[in-house]
Amino acid sequence: MATSKNKNASLTDAQRAEVDALRAAAAPTRRVTALALEEILYEPLPVLDHGFVRVIDYMGDDSAVVQAARVSYGKGTKRVSEDRGLINYLMRHRHSTPFEMCEIKYHVKLPVFVARQWIRHRTANVNEYSARYSILDREFYIPAPQHLAAQSTVNRQGRGDVLEGREAERVLAMLKDDAERNYDHYVEMLNEREDGTVVDEGKSGLARELARMNLTLNVYTQWYWKTDLHNLFHFLSLRADTHAQYEIRAYADAMLETVKRWVPAAYEAFTDYRLGGFALSAKALAAVKRMLAGEAVTAESAGMSAREWRELMAALGR
Amino acid sequence: MATSKNKNASLTDAQRAEVDALRAAAAPTRRVTALALEEILYEPLPVLDHGFVRVIDYMGDDSAVVQAARVSYGKGTKRVSEDRGLINYLMRHRHSTPFEMCEIKYHVKLPVFVARQWIRHRTANVNEYSARYSILDREFYIPAPQHLAAQSTVNRQGRGDVLEGREAERVLAMLKDDAERNYDHYVEMLNEREDGTVVDEGKSGLARELARMNLTLNVYTQWYWKTDLHNLFHFLSLRADTHAQYEIRAYADAMLETVKRWVPAAYEAFTDYRLGGFALSAKALAAVKRMLAGEAVTAESAGMSAREWRELMAALGR
Amino acid sequence: MATSKNKNASLTDAQRAEVDALRAAAAPTRRVTALALEEILYEPLPVLDHGFVRVIDYMGDDSAVVQAARVSYGKGTKRVSEDRGLINYLMRHRHSTPFEMCEIKYHVKLPVFVARQWIRHRTANVNEYSARYSILDREFYIPAPQHLAAQSTVNRQGRGDVLEGREAERVLAMLKDDAERNYDHYVEMLNEREDGTVVDEGKSGLARELARMNLTLNVYTQWYWKTDLHNLFHFLSLRADTHAQYEIRAYADAMLETVKRWVPAAYEAFTDYRLGGFALSAKALAAVKRMLAGEAVTAESAGMSAREWRELMAALGR
Amino acid sequence: MATSKNKNASLTDAQRAEVDALRAAAAPTRRVTALALEEILYEPLPVLDHGFVRVIDYMGDDSAVVQAARVSYGKGTKRVSEDRGLINYLMRHRHSTPFEMCEIKYHVKLPVFVARQWIRHRTANVNEYSARYSILDREFYIPAPQHLAAQSTVNRQGRGDVLEGREAERVLAMLKDDAERNYDHYVEMLNEREDGTVVDEGKSGLARELARMNLTLNVYTQWYWKTDLHNLFHFLSLRADTHAQYEIRAYADAMLETVKRWVPAAYEAFTDYRLGGFALSAKALAAVKRMLAGEAVTAESAGMSAREWRELMAALGR
Repeated sequence: MATSKNKNASLTDAQRAEVDALRAAAAPTRRVTALALEEILYEPLPVLDHGFVRVIDYMGDDSAVVQAARVSYGKGTKRVSEDRGLINYLMRHRHSTPFEMCEIKYHVKLPVFVARQWIRHRTANVNEYSARYSILDREFYIPAPQHLAAQSTVNRQGRGDVLEGREAERVLAMLKDDAERNYDHYVEMLNEREDGTVVDEGKSGLARELARMNLTLNVYTQWYWKTDLHNLFHFLSLRADTHAQYEIRAYADAMLETVKRWVPAAYEAFTDYRLGGFALSAKALAAVKRMLAGEAVTAESAGMSAREWRELMAALGR
Repeated sequence: MATSKNKNASLTDAQRAEVDALRAAAAPTRRVTALALEEILYEPLPVLDHGFVRVIDYMGDDSAVVQAARVSYGKGTKRVSEDRGLINYLMRHRHSTPFEMCEIKYHVKLPVFVARQWIRHRTANVNEYSARYSILDREFYIPAPQHLAAQSTVNRQGRGDVLEGREAERVLAMLKDDAERNYDHYVEMLNEREDGTVVDEGKSGLARELARMNLTLNVYTQWYWKTDLHNLFHFLSLRADTHAQYEIRAYADAMLETVKRWVPAAYEAFTDYRLGGFALSAKALAAVKRMLAGEAVTAESAGMSAREWRELMAALGR
Repeated sequence: MATSKNKNASLTDAQRAEVDALRAAAAPTRRVTALALEEILYEPLPVLDHGFVRVIDYMGDDSAVVQAARVSYGKGTKRVSEDRGLINYLMRHRHSTPFEMCEIKYHVKLPVFVARQWIRHRTANVNEYSARYSILDREFYIPAPQHLAAQSTVNRQGRGDVLEGREAERVLAMLKDDAERNYDHYVEMLNEREDGTVVDEGKSGLARELARMNLTLNVYTQWYWKTDLHNLFHFLSLRADTHAQYEIRAYADAMLETVKRWVPAAYEAFTDYRLGGFALSAKALAAVKRMLAGEAVTAESAGMSAREWRELMAALGR
Repeated sequence: MATSKNKNASLTDAQRAEVDALRAAAAPTRRVTALALEEILYEPLPVLDHGFVRVIDYMGDDSAVVQAARVSYGKGTKRVSEDRGLINYLMRHRHSTPFEMCEIKYHVKLPVFVARQWIRHRTANVNEYSARYSILDREFYIPAPQHLAAQSTVNRQGRGDVLEGREAERVLAMLKDDAERNYDHYVEMLNEREDGTVVDEGKSGLARELARMNLTLNVYTQWYWKTDLHNLFHFLSLRADTHAQYEIRAYADAMLETVKRWVPAAYEAFTDYRLGGFALSAKALAAVKRMLAGEAVTAESAGMSAREWRELMAALGR
C-alpha cells in the first residue's frame, strides 16, 4: 500500500519509528484474525493535507457476524446456503445486531470543524487529545484549490461553482494568515512553545484551557475512535454519501478501504444495500408500479412534492 | 427571577417577543406539572458574556421517580415511609433507572470550545445550529478580567495565579482583535452578511461549510439539548465540580437552579450524595477505620500513593 | 375511544379509580400540548387477553420536531414551504435527530415472552415490576383460538396453517393448566398469597427471587417504558411489521394509534416512508431501471439471489 | 484451570470438539494480546448446574487504557510515574472513557430469569438463541440445596434462613417436576423433538414462537454478549455485589476471573475503588470528620435516617 507511507501523513520521526516497531512485532493469538487488515495495521492512511486515519485494533471478522446470526436465528439459518448469503440477508432486512459483534478502533488526525461533525455520532467511544492539558500542534487544514467552491445559489447545502484565480488565492491567503497569526498569539498568551519551553521567564502565561479559544476551527486535533461494525456502517452511509461535506467524506472514503480489508462480505453487502441503494416511500413504490404497468405518472398524480419527485426521477435515471 | 431578564442574555427584540408570547400562553394538561419550573419556562438564564440556558420543555417531576421506583421495587418500597426517603435511598444505592423517567430540554447558547466539552456526554439528544447551512452571529466569548488565570506550574490542569494589569489587557485585546478580524474575513469569504445580503454582486462567495473554519473557538453557537434526569445528574456531577473548567461550570451552575425548581427532592439527594460526597476506596476505608480506632496512619501504612493520600486528607479536612 | 374502557384492560377497581382521578385533574402549563393525546392520557388501551398500553406522559409534538430542524438547518429550511413538508423531508433523508426531541412514556402490561423481545430495543428507559421483591399476579396469556398456528414447514419463522378443533383445544388446555399449576406451586413455595398474607404460619417460604422461576413465560408483567420519537419509530417499524410475532404486533398497533394522536404529521411521514416503503438495493435499483426501459429482467441477469428476487417481485406486485 | 474442564459445563461432544479445535489453532497478529486471557479463550467456565461463561474474543489490554488516557490528558500524564498509577488515577476520578477502549465478547449459557436481570444493562451488544426459530434444550436450573433460602421477614430483598429438610425437598421436587412436565408439553405442542424430528406425522404442530410460552423461567438460554471494559465494570459492580441475587452473582464472579487475566492493573484498581469502596454522602463525610475529632455522633445529630446510619456504621465496622 504505497500511499500509506506518503509523507503527507504527518508523522514525526519518533512517531514513524513507533509505527514501524509496532508493525514489526507479532504475537500468536487464538482470536480470529483478518489478514488483509493486519497488513495495514497501525499504518496511517493520509487524508487531507495533514490528517490521517489508521487502524489500531479490531475484533472479529465476517465469521463473527455469521456466528452471532446463527445463535440468534438458530437452525433456521441453515437454509441460507452459505455465509455470504446470510450476511446479505441480514443487511437487507436490517438485522443489525450480528454486525455489532465486530469492533474496530481508529486513531484519527482531523481538523476541529470535521471533528465537530464526526462527534455527532454518539454510539462510539472517543478519547481526544486535550487542549485543556496539552499544547496543540501548529497544523491547520488549508483546502486544495480544487476543493474551494462557491456557495451555490440553487442549493446552499453543497458547493457549486469553484472559486478560481484571484478570488481563490485571496481566500487561501486569508485562511492561512489568520490561522498562523492566531497560533502565534496562542503561543504568546501561553508564554510557552509547542515543546513546553517557556518563552519569557519574566511573564506569566494564560491557562491552556483558555488560550486555545484563540485558535481557528481548522486547527488539527486527534483522537482514538472505536465503534462496532453496525454503527460504523451507519456513520459511513451518512459520511461517505455525496451529500456529506467533502472534508469528512475524505475520511469516510479512507475508512471504507479498511472495512473492505476487514470484513469483505459485509462490505460488499453494505455497498449493495446501503451505499448504492434507494429507499422508495409508499407513494414512490406505488408510482413505480404504475410506471412499470406503462402508465404516465407525474408528481401530482403520484401525490409527491416537486422536490421528492425530482429525487425519485434522479434515482431512476429519468 | 430578576437576573433572568438581564440584557446579557443576548436576545434580539424578535426573540424577546417570541419568549414573551410563549410565556403568556397556557393550556390545560393532564400531565404532572412542576410549578416552580413553569415560572421560568422559556426564560433565558444568562451565562458568560453572551450565552444563556433556558428550559424549553420537561416531562415528569419527583413523583415520576417515585412512581417508577414503586413499580420496580413493588411492595418492598412501602416500608420507606415517604417519597423523600425513597428518593434518598435510590440515590444512595445508585438505582438510576427511576431517575431516567424524567426528561428535560434546554436551549443553550455557548462558545464552541465549551460545546466541544459538553458534547462528550453522549446520552443526550442534540440539535445544533448549523454553520454548514447558516451564517454564525458575530458574538465571541471574551473572559471577564477576573477569570483570566496564569497556568499554574504545580497543577497544569486548573488555573492558578490570575493574570493582571498589562498582561491581562494584552491577552484580552488579542482575543478580541483576532476574533473580530477572523469574523470580518469570514464575511468577506462568504461575500455575504449575517442577514444573508450579498456584499459584492460581482464576486463569488466561499461555501458556508468552508468559510466557518476561519472562525475562532470562542465564537458562540447554540443548540437544543435534551436528556433524562439521571444523565443530567451525571453531567452536573462532572461539570458543576470544582475541577471543571470555569466556563462550562457557569452553565452547570445555572442548570442546577433549574433542577432545584423542577425536582426539589431529587436535587437535594443529589447535593448530599453526589456533589458534596466523597468516595472512599477499600484502602481509604481501612485507613479511616484505623484512624477512628485511634491509630496514627500514614500514606505508607495505608498503602496509598502520596497523591491519593493528599486527596483523602483534604476531604477529611486534615 | 370506546374500546379503551373495555373491561379487558384488567384494571382492579382501585386502579380504575386512580386512572379516573388522574384524568379528572388538569393543571395549566406553558409547555406545548397535544390535545388529541391528552384525551386518552392514562387510559389503558386493551391488548391481548389481559394486557394494555397506556400513555402516562409525553413531551413535545410535531412543532418540536420542526423547531429542532430549524435550529439545525437554519435559514436553509425556510425554503421548505411548511412544517409538514419539512417533516417529510427529514423522514425521507433519515435526519433523525429532530425526532429525538419528542419523548413519550407508556405503562405496559404484557406477557414475559413479549417483554423479552421488547427489551431488545436498548435505547429506552425501563422500570419493570420486580418479581424479586413482589409477588406476580395470577394472570397468563392464553392465545385466542384464531391465533394458534401450525409451524409452517416452508417458513419456520412465521405461522402457517391454523391449528384447529381438538388439536387446538388440547394445546389451549395444556397452556392453561400448566400455567395455573405452576402458579399454585409458586404460591406454595412462597408460603404467601398474592396479597402478602402467609399461607401456613408453621412453615418457611422460599425467597420470591427464587420462587418466580417456576412461573411460565406467558405470565404477565408490567413496566414503564419511555423513549424518544425516533427510537419509537424504529421500534414500530420492526414490531408493527408483518414479520413480527402477532403478540408484540398487537402492542405496536395500539401504540401506533397513540402516535397518530400525538404527532399526526410525523405519523403520516412515518407511514409513507417507513411502514409502507421498500428499500431498493443497488442491484434492485438497476433492475427496476432496466424494467422501466422495457427490458425483461430475471434474477440471474439482475445478479440477485432467488429469495431476494422474490422479495422484490412481491414488493412490485409482480 | 482445572475447573474449566468440569463436565458441568454442559458441552455436547460436538461442542467440546469445536472448542478444542479453536484452542488448538493460533495465528500471528500485530494487535496487543493478553497472554493470560489467551490461555482460557473459548474454554467454558462452569456456572450453576448447566450454565457457563466463556471468552470468545477481546480487544486491548491495560496498555490500551493508558494509551487512550495519554492522548486525552497529554503531557500532563507524564507526571503520573507509571501505568499502574495512571490507571488508579483514572478509576479514582471516574475518568471512564479510557476504559471504553477495551472490548470483550462472552458466550454465556444462563437461565431465562437470570437473562432478564442481565439484559437490563443496555450498553452492550447481544445476540440470543431464538426460541422463536429454534427449539430450546431440555435444561433447567435447579438450585443446589444450600442455595435455597427462606424469605427473610426483616429484609424481603435477600435471602434469610435456609429452607431445610422436607420443605427443601418438596420445593426442589416441584421445581423439577413442573419444569419437566412443561417441557414435555412443549414438545407435544410442537409435535417436534429437540433434534427437529416430527413426533406424530398425522398431527400439526404449534408454532415455536408460541409453544415456548409454556416453558418455565428456569429454562436455559444462551447468548453472545459484548461490552467495553467501563460498562463491564459497571455491570460487575452491581452484579458481583453481595446485594445481587446469588444466581447472577455466580456469573459475575466467573467473569471477574476473566477480567483479572485480561487487564490485571485495571482489575486491581476496580477492586480497590469500586468493589471494596464506600461512598460517603456529604452528611456522612461531616459525621466522619466529627468522629475523627473525637466527637460522639448519632444518626440524629448527623441528620441521617436510621437506615442510612446503619449502613454507614456497618461500613465503618462499628
